Amino acid sequence: MANFADRLLQDIRSKDSRCIVGLDPRTDQMPAFISRESACATITEFHELVLDAVADLVPAVKPQLAFFEQYGVAGMQAFENTVHAAKKRGLLVIADAKRNDISSTAEAYANAYLSPDAFDCDALTVTPYLGRDSLTPFTEACRKHAKGLFVVLKTSNPGSKDFQDQPLVEDGRPLYEKIAAVLNKLGRDLTGESGYSSLGAVIGATFPEEAARLRTLMPQALILVPGYGAQGGSAKAAAECFNDDGLGAIVSSSRGITYAFNDPNLSREAFVQSVRANTLRMIAEINTAVKRVPITAS
Amino acid sequence: MANFADRLLQDIRSKDSRCIVGLDPRTDQMPAFISRESACATITEFHELVLDAVADLVPAVKPQLAFFEQYGVAGMQAFENTVHAAKKRGLLVIADAKRNDISSTAEAYANAYLSPDAFDCDALTVTPYLGRDSLTPFTEACRKHAKGLFVVLKTSNPGSKDFQDQPLVEDGRPLYEKIAAVLNKLGRDLTGESGYSSLGAVIGATFPEEAARLRTLMPQALILVPGYGAQGGSAKAAAECFNDDGLGAIVSSSRGITYAFNDPNLSREAFVQSVRANTLRMIAEINTAVKRVPITAS
Repeated sequence: MANFADRLLQDIRSKDSRCIVGLDPRTDQMPAFISRESACATITEFHELVLDAVADLVPAVKPQLAFFEQYGVAGMQAFENTVHAAKKRGLLVIADAKRNDISSTAEAYANAYLSPDAFDCDALTVTPYLGRDSLTPFTEACRKHAKGLFVVLKTSNPGSKDFQDQPLVEDGRPLYEKIAAVLNKLGRDLTGESGYSSLGAVIGATFPEEAARLRTLMPQALILVPGYGAQGGSAKAAAECFNDDGLGAIVSSSRGITYAFNDPNLSREAFVQSVRANTLRMIAEINTAVKRVPITAS
Repeated sequence: MANFADRLLQDIRSKDSRCIVGLDPRTDQMPAFISRESACATITEFHELVLDAVADLVPAVKPQLAFFEQYGVAGMQAFENTVHAAKKRGLLVIADAKRNDISSTAEAYANAYLSPDAFDCDALTVTPYLGRDSLTPFTEACRKHAKGLFVVLKTSNPGSKDFQDQPLVEDGRPLYEKIAAVLNKLGRDLTGESGYSSLGAVIGATFPEEAARLRTLMPQALILVPGYGAQGGSAKAAAECFNDDGLGAIVSSSRGITYAFNDPNLSREAFVQSVRANTLRMIAEINTAVKRVPITAS
């Protein structure tokens, strides 16, 4: 199977879409026509409808594990169903789980999300605090199973300044730049024919200067930009995460796509139209911004 | 219900045990007499046996989510069964999940593991990289549901030096000390009658000097010391995580308790005896070390 980065880029090009749809199940916010038989059935039905609506528009979806786990075992069954439903429709699945641990425990997480043994997603988000050796079980799984990894680097929340931005004695640069340098080296072995690596980074779109600098520091990394809209990220800021080739990043929106309807009693058709319209609007905004905004980082 | 720290300390005192048992399901390493009907049944049966063996010896168990997740939905059902079985036997459950995210996603994780809505554990491990505001949904859940939190601070792996140990320009101290200071402030509101806070920290036992220093910097924190034995941590090093009152930490062992038998064809009774003997040995080692080793940090 082709390298994850190559597969993602092929779909980005063929759909001319740099956007992905986040799947955050919140059963209390779903339209009234969705059956309330059980948490698992409700979440599965809702996502199948969303996936049908966006399958031809985006290269990937990003289920957020936290929102599934809050429904317990039923939520995890709905997660498995959602992953299957997305793959059946030709969509790549990026499990947003922000996992990590050390040695054999990291291997177990890699098995859980990146191997065919369990949830078998196409890519996984992980955290970097535990150090370089905590990431290698995941990069090994990526190599073995042609999967991808996105390491959390600079998040969009105010608290991202607390630790991520701390300048280090070593060279006066912020911690996240040191992590970026480690990821650059680790990601080399996962570079595909496209020139991009299957080891990417998560960078929020609320700090455009930092994003632009990280873009130049990690030219081969695919950048996952979460929370478009909802977390205050703008298209202009998201555009800083792209390279001059107009590629190298994917922008994700969750609530702004799947829960952005006003009337909970809307019809099934109106809901599908809402999801499609929101997705098309985001794709157009990002495509326009990527072409308009010059890459300003030096 | 009483504060988590108070509940844990009461059980530590009544059992004179500063040790907890880690539950890392690995079906291929379980004794031959355990039925292989299904991953869920196998893991549940194995853990019920372990829990019966240790219920009177330790205050808590620590299921490691990664090892459950690698068995997919069946593994998560086994996790739910294991949590129920542990609570039924009067044991506290610390879910070792190293979760975190921002805003409503962090709330969803807190709901999943600390609220009665889903897995309803007694405490959860989380990572700090996303900053102070990523931790507050968890501390709020602790306050609301009388639960506990252990924030990963200094891990036992070689790679813990990569980022955790980085001296900061701010004051020349390592990053983990800055995080410790933030946790100290956040934990004040969760202090129980015992004087200990329900906001604790995870500190590996392979770096005794760092552990001793962190112990003095966070006098009110309960310290979770993982990987006793298997990760190279010694009783002497683990003892550095205790206060002069002989309290303030819990030491966890997983493989050294549940998989430390030589013959996979051993009998059910021999397995239970092995688990009890390994647990009693660890308790004695830690109790001896805590009383012997003077707290050397300044």
